[in-house]
Amino acid sequence: LRTGMPEVIYAKGKTSNQVARIFLSLTASGVNVLATRATREQYEAVKQVEPRAEFHEIAACITLNQKGDPTQTGIIGVVCAGTSDLPVAEEAAVTAELMGNRVERIVDVGVAGLHRLLSQHSRLQEASVLIVCAGMEGALPSVVGGLVGVPVIAVPTSVGYGASFSGLAALLGMLNSCSPNVTVVNIDNGFGAAYVATLINRRQSS
Amino acid sequence: LRTGMPEVIYAKGKTSNQVARIFLSLTASGVNVLATRATREQYEAVKQVEPRAEFHEIAACITLNQKGDPTQTGIIGVVCAGTSDLPVAEEAAVTAELMGNRVERIVDVGVAGLHRLLSQHSRLQEASVLIVCAGMEGALPSVVGGLVGVPVIAVPTSVGYGASFSGLAALLGMLNSCSPNVTVVNIDNGFGAAYVATLINRRQSS
Amino acid sequence: LRTGMPEVIYAKGKTSNQVARIFLSLTASGVNVLATRATREQYEAVKQVEPRAEFHEIAACITLNQKGDPTQTGIIGVVCAGTSDLPVAEEAAVTAELMGNRVERIVDVGVAGLHRLLSQHSRLQEASVLIVCAGMEGALPSVVGGLVGVPVIAVPTSVGYGASFSGLAALLGMLNSCSPNVTVVNIDNGFGAAYVATLINRRQSS
Amino acid sequence: LRTGMPEVIYAKGKTSNQVARIFLSLTASGVNVLATRATREQYEAVKQVEPRAEFHEIAACITLNQKGDPTQTGIIGVVCAGTSDLPVAEEAAVTAELMGNRVERIVDVGVAGLHRLLSQHSRLQEASVLIVCAGMEGALPSVVGGLVGVPVIAVPTSVGYGASFSGLAALLGMLNSCSPNVTVVNIDNGFGAAYVATLINRRQSS
Amino acid sequence: LRTGMPEVIYAKGKTSNQVARIFLSLTASGVNVLATRATREQYEAVKQVEPRAEFHEIAACITLNQKGDPTQTGIIGVVCAGTSDLPVAEEAAVTAELMGNRVERIVDVGVAGLHRLLSQHSRLQEASVLIVCAGMEGALPSVVGGLVGVPVIAVPTSVGYGASFSGLAALLGMLNSCSPNVTVVNIDNGFGAAYVATLINRRQSS
Amino acid sequence: LRTGMPEVIYAKGKTSNQVARIFLSLTASGVNVLATRATREQYEAVKQVEPRAEFHEIAACITLNQKGDPTQTGIIGVVCAGTSDLPVAEEAAVTAELMGNRVERIVDVGVAGLHRLLSQHSRLQEASVLIVCAGMEGALPSVVGGLVGVPVIAVPTSVGYGASFSGLAALLGMLNSCSPNVTVVNIDNGFGAAYVATLINRRQSS
Amino acid sequence: LRTGMPEVIYAKGKTSNQVARIFLSLTASGVNVLATRATREQYEAVKQVEPRAEFHEIAACITLNQKGDPTQTGIIGVVCAGTSDLPVAEEAAVTAELMGNRVERIVDVGVAGLHRLLSQHSRLQEASVLIVCAGMEGALPSVVGGLVGVPVIAVPTSVGYGASFSGLAALLGMLNSCSPNVTVVNIDNGFGAAYVATLINRRQSS
Amino acid sequence: LRTGMPEVIYAKGKTSNQVARIFLSLTASGVNVLATRATREQYEAVKQVEPRAEFHEIAACITLNQKGDPTQTGIIGVVCAGTSDLPVAEEAAVTAELMGNRVERIVDVGVAGLHRLLSQHSRLQEASVLIVCAGMEGALPSVVGGLVGVPVIAVPTSVGYGASFSGLAALLGMLNSCSPNVTVVNIDNGFGAAYVATLINRRQSS
Ligand SMILES: Nc1ncnc2c1ncn2[C@@H]1O[C@H](COP(=O)(O)O)[C@@H](O)[C@H]1O
Ligand SMILES: Nc1ncnc2c1ncn2[C@@H]1O[C@H](COP(=O)(O)O)[C@@H](O)[C@H]1O
Ligand SMILES: Nc1ncnc2c1ncn2[C@@H]1O[C@H](COP(=O)(O)O)[C@@H](O)[C@H]1O
Ligand SMILES: Nc1ncnc2c1ncn2[C@@H]1O[C@H](COP(=O)(O)O)[C@@H](O)[C@H]1O
Ligand SMILES: [Mg+2]
Ligand SMILES: [Mg+2]
Ligand SMILES: [Mg+2]
Ligand SMILES: [Mg+2]
Ligand SMILES: [Mg+2]
Ligand SMILES: [Mg+2]
Ligand SMILES: [Mg+2]
Ligand SMILES: [Mg+2]
Repeated sequence: LRTGMPEVIYAKGKTSNQVARIFLSLTASGVNVLATRATREQYEAVKQVEPRAEFHEIAACITLNQKGDPTQTGIIGVVCAGTSDLPVAEEAAVTAELMGNRVERIVDVGVAGLHRLLSQHSRLQEASVLIVCAGMEGALPSVVGGLVGVPVIAVPTSVGYGASFSGLAALLGMLNSCSPNVTVVNIDNGFGAAYVATLINRRQSS
Repeated sequence: LRTGMPEVIYAKGKTSNQVARIFLSLTASGVNVLATRATREQYEAVKQVEPRAEFHEIAACITLNQKGDPTQTGIIGVVCAGTSDLPVAEEAAVTAELMGNRVERIVDVGVAGLHRLLSQHSRLQEASVLIVCAGMEGALPSVVGGLVGVPVIAVPTSVGYGASFSGLAALLGMLNSCSPNVTVVNIDNGFGAAYVATLINRRQSS
Repeated sequence: LRTGMPEVIYAKGKTSNQVARIFLSLTASGVNVLATRATREQYEAVKQVEPRAEFHEIAACITLNQKGDPTQTGIIGVVCAGTSDLPVAEEAAVTAELMGNRVERIVDVGVAGLHRLLSQHSRLQEASVLIVCAGMEGALPSVVGGLVGVPVIAVPTSVGYGASFSGLAALLGMLNSCSPNVTVVNIDNGFGAAYVATLINRRQSS
Repeated sequence: LRTGMPEVIYAKGKTSNQVARIFLSLTASGVNVLATRATREQYEAVKQVEPRAEFHEIAACITLNQKGDPTQTGIIGVVCAGTSDLPVAEEAAVTAELMGNRVERIVDVGVAGLHRLLSQHSRLQEASVLIVCAGMEGALPSVVGGLVGVPVIAVPTSVGYGASFSGLAALLGMLNSCSPNVTVVNIDNGFGAAYVATLINRRQSS
Repeated sequence: LRTGMPEVIYAKGKTSNQVARIFLSLTASGVNVLATRATREQYEAVKQVEPRAEFHEIAACITLNQKGDPTQTGIIGVVCAGTSDLPVAEEAAVTAELMGNRVERIVDVGVAGLHRLLSQHSRLQEASVLIVCAGMEGALPSVVGGLVGVPVIAVPTSVGYGASFSGLAALLGMLNSCSPNVTVVNIDNGFGAAYVATLINRRQSS
Repeated sequence: LRTGMPEVIYAKGKTSNQVARIFLSLTASGVNVLATRATREQYEAVKQVEPRAEFHEIAACITLNQKGDPTQTGIIGVVCAGTSDLPVAEEAAVTAELMGNRVERIVDVGVAGLHRLLSQHSRLQEASVLIVCAGMEGALPSVVGGLVGVPVIAVPTSVGYGASFSGLAALLGMLNSCSPNVTVVNIDNGFGAAYVATLINRRQSS
Repeated sequence: LRTGMPEVIYAKGKTSNQVARIFLSLTASGVNVLATRATREQYEAVKQVEPRAEFHEIAACITLNQKGDPTQTGIIGVVCAGTSDLPVAEEAAVTAELMGNRVERIVDVGVAGLHRLLSQHSRLQEASVLIVCAGMEGALPSVVGGLVGVPVIAVPTSVGYGASFSGLAALLGMLNSCSPNVTVVNIDNGFGAAYVATLINRRQSS
Repeated sequence: LRTGMPEVIYAKGKTSNQVARIFLSLTASGVNVLATRATREQYEAVKQVEPRAEFHEIAACITLNQKGDPTQTGIIGVVCAGTSDLPVAEEAAVTAELMGNRVERIVDVGVAGLHRLLSQHSRLQEASVLIVCAGMEGALPSVVGGLVGVPVIAVPTSVGYGASFSGLAALLGMLNSCSPNVTVVNIDNGFGAAYVATLINRRQSS
């Protein structure tokens, strides 16, 4: 069912040894390998057993790319408002790249500064599918959704305080989006967004 | 404390007779009188005792204007996305007008259609204070807040279904607004928004 | 942006006259027209002014198809467990058909009766994208998601009682799906699911 | 009322000394003794005073079995999807064993991989009662419930993130199960599930 | 899997005709038939096509008993505090009877009047399994659970007002029961409780 | 207004120095002084400046009694189920004693073991007012309320896990108590319960 | 236990016949009888069988006073802000009167108009116990609590809209009251507040 | 749009180095610079690169004032009940001062001690706009709102425990304020309140 998808480890709550052992075992079949929610310490353990593995600090991901360059022709755009949402956006971007997609990062485009967003309009329109990450009020996917004609996968992030209720405000906002091209994944789930975006992006090339 | 403010009746849950009786008694002192959340039936009863009273269908308001034309020089802008939020926006607009403000209505400007919003940019910037009503994801105040340098009073509306939870999604979104010039009132509280906007608008003229 | 998409009316809360008037005005440009959450009474009003309009009882939709047969080669599968979720599933199916897709309905396949679901395995696998509607515990999208390699758009429905909290249980379940190909739309939002599914389905044919 | 049930300590929040002291005092009457939510440190203290005590790392349980082998002829099946839910499943399994039941563990059978679950069908059907632990969307009990004709005790776990809300999503899902043979206990309550399963399992043998 | 269980219709939201038609079709195989959440009007329609059908006013159930007297030797006790919880308790009792169980009803035993509850102690202890229905604070299952050594299936009811939040208070109370022999079903789900109680009760007789 | 009430410090979040300084300043007028939610470390600092101060480990209270023995003739009963709720019950008991009441502690009387509760019946009935602390399902106040003819002040505690939601389950249960002599204070608020109980107890003696 | 308390019927959801029949049966023993949440229609049925019964329109209570005048010397004050909370306040007042208390009604004293509240200061201070009803933000009990030295029983009302969530906002506010003499009953539970107030008021006279 | 407003850094979650680097870069243009939610450690790093920076311990703010004294003639009043709410009140006050306003702090004025609040009546009335911070029941803004004729910006704080739910109780209370001059910002958002208060205060002077 999932030809070409990497093997994935959810590293949170696993010991460095466990992550390293699983990682190594998954490399055998020649596919790409990804560990999400990983720490630098877990990475050091992986590197001992698989020196080709790379660490993505902000994304908190360990990757092993055994398949080489992007194989999709379409572009996945990964959009977020600023530095706080970057970890989630980078989890999505790193995942999407490892799944063989060309990825465009469009950051620093919050809804309270429309000119920055509008200045990226042409880049937004070049994407085959967009992943839009936002915390707090989570309004970015609706605005982006109105600017493009492709599917927008909205990722609420747990960034915020008080009445953000750890991402609940953003989640509810996105589910009620008035842009009909928006669908939603779990709070902070950059990985899941990239997975679905890859499935969509593949359709064009196949 | 509240010189020049109208007397106000919250008509919901009162009988037509009660509304008419209270309305009449409040007219005596010569101030303006306002009944919100009123039905046409209640209006008919009021009209019997005070023929000068007017009914505002969409706003569900009965008004008696004994003071005449606007006395403020500044403009209160009342903004909403479309027909569904109109009752709340009109409650705000009718209230603001009766309180002596010049009011500009800017409707049909949802976040999923930025060009319509941007085409109203200069009108938005002419206002001394803005009331922005939105249901569903409630993103409009953040976007408008980024376009102007004045206070924005956000009114979440109970418009929507499912995960809008009768206005909760919009309310949480507005409280988490990334535009620092946004404050929030209760769900559907167009009256309260107009009251505060009037206090702000008065400061310029005084 | 939205070439080929029908014009859409959200009929709930509008009078029959309003729906008929808007419907007629939208037909002019030759596109397809759709009214969702419509009553038979609203349909009768529409039919007076546009005799070609059709009513879909279970879906509660009025449609006018001016464009003819499906133009997409891919299939959108619309899946649900039984009669209670049918209105939402039909809103999705009718919308998708009017947007030019070939639609396969796969109903009566709840998670508590796996044999019925598994007997539809090949039909599930023929779809380019799946819309899965479920109320109560909302587990169907996860199970279906594990059986296919395409995007699954999960629609929680408000069907249920007690701790279903009008669709909240299903919504939370779907957001936490362990199948990574699942994204979610608002409770009962069959229309939104069909919109995104159409965008995905189009990619293959273009 | 509770003949043959072990004495039980909820170790969380107690000092090692307190646990050891209570544990020792309970052994006197010759019954089995169980401490749940225990740390290795608490175990070391117990072992000092009762060397026969055993520690179950994953279950976080300390046990003293003074009664010997299973006395029930029926089997309690303990089912979960993977490593994250194992601590709860093991709390249930260790408790059930100490209460004199034969226990079958069936792990690594998530709803997104039906073939693994179906390959265990005959083992599932051999059980007199099933305990099914699941976090995230908590769909496993419904699916298992549809495969067997015995009571299923569903244990939501706090495993997950974001909209899992520490087990709330799984809890609501299980309460809304469309399989009528499902009842539910508190989040992470493997002990309680095993207690009720024992009462049910005993009925056959008596 | 479900030998001897009746065929069941959830009548809510179905037309009288639909209920009658489905009811008749289910009688053919000779099993018992049950319709829950049924109105007297639906019953009249059923009676036209199947004169042997009976209506249980308080339980809101239509039954057809083609199998005769109880076949289980164990007793299912159905317990509730008073008149308000009776509809849910009766749904459970009628369902359990139709499933071939001997049923004992123990009503008017609220936790605020312990003497009434204690005066029923011996009847409580004769049951093989207990179904305990309670609204408001939902404390009855805990108290009953402490008096017996058999499984207690707790059914929160939506009876109450204010902070009962339509059964949520009772539901949470029951999930947190300090009696370890308590499991819980959905709010108002008398049917589900009877189903599981039947499975437990059958074990003794087999 | 509050003659004879001690001066009170809420120690949580204050430094040891701050607590000591405030404590000393309050002793001057000769009244009793109480610090709640205090640590041993804060106590050590207080003792440096006021050697007569006492520490109550379980209650987490520092007290200075400058007024001597109880002055009320009525008894305040403080009731709880077991060790976990003791900190809250002791905060209530220590507070009530410092306010000049005679206090009876009745612990280890959970609703799942009625015989222990009933064996305390006469002690319960001797009290002028009862404070009943309970976590998890919070059923104890209802049961106790049914046994006595005096006011019962219910204190939900944050003891529990999972669906106890840090005391919410107990709080809702108590608010829905079917015993009409029950009122409720905030979660873990032993102090507030003792304050009101003192006011009630005083009425008899005055 | 409850000498001198009236017999009480919760009339909501009962037919007029049922209410009349129960009412009559309760009058026999010579005690006072009270039906709360009653309609005028139910009253008419009661009056047929017991002509001495009285109806209290705003309180929605039917009463039969067979005991005569107040027997308590202390006063119960019943306080609320305005007309909307009157039904709950009157349920409390009527109940308290029937239970033999002298009752003082202090209405129209909201927190946003302190002068009106302060002008009632001496009346507030004459009460032995106060019942304070408030909807919306529920701040009145805290303010009143600070003005008196007696117990304040706070009754949140379901009056309000939007983020009042049917009394939840008022309930939470009252539970977090910074006045330590405040305890809380269920939303709209005027009856329960009067019951406890009676128990407190009796202490002085006994 | 935002002439004269300082540049602002949200320091939480940033390293000391990051804060220092960003702070320095923002000073270049000559505007005031503000870092909120800052630690002393972050301040030390800033001071290394910008010795003129000041630290406000209670407010947790780092400021650089390059513009000198207040330029507004109106006064912003910052009001709170006591020490627990001071951090939020100080964040508001420090922000407002840096934005060129004259600020009056009015602390220690809780609703349970009206005399202290009333003794500040004239200071409250001198302000052009008031910021009122309150945790727990959040009643202060309503009471203050009733005493003045200017806009009140209510800031719920996360101070409290139990049913305060980290500021939710205060937030809901403020949204339901019966004083119509109250608007609300996010929990603990002293900065946002000061921003809007500045915009309002400026209107008089312009
Ligand atoms: N960041 C993530 N969020 C959600 N699911 C994930 C994430 N990373 C991995 N997964 C899923 O978790 C599975 C691996 O879980 P595990 O076997 O516990 O390591 C993968 O198959 C993915 O579907
Ligand atoms: N069932 C539906 N659920 C959500 N959105 C809808 C639905 N039906 C229509 N819409 C949206 O509502 C818009 C029309 O709203 P209106 O102008 O109020 O009729 C359309 O552009 C659609 O995007
Ligand atoms: N009162 C009830 N509560 C929960 N589930 C029920 C109830 N009554 C019937 N059911 C279930 O609903 C199914 C029938 O649903 P339906 O086909 O829609 O009539 C049955 O198989 C039962 O499992
Ligand atoms: N308004 C009310 N709110 C809460 N409980 C009430 C109310 N009125 C009556 N009750 C209680 O309900 C009981 C009578 O219930 P019932 O037998 O169903 O009429 C009385 O004993 C009271 O304790
Ligand atoms: Mg959508
Ligand atoms: Mg803001
Ligand atoms: Mg997913
Ligand atoms: Mg069930
Ligand atoms: Mg249990
Ligand atoms: Mg009560
Ligand atoms: Mg209190
Ligand atoms: Mg307001």
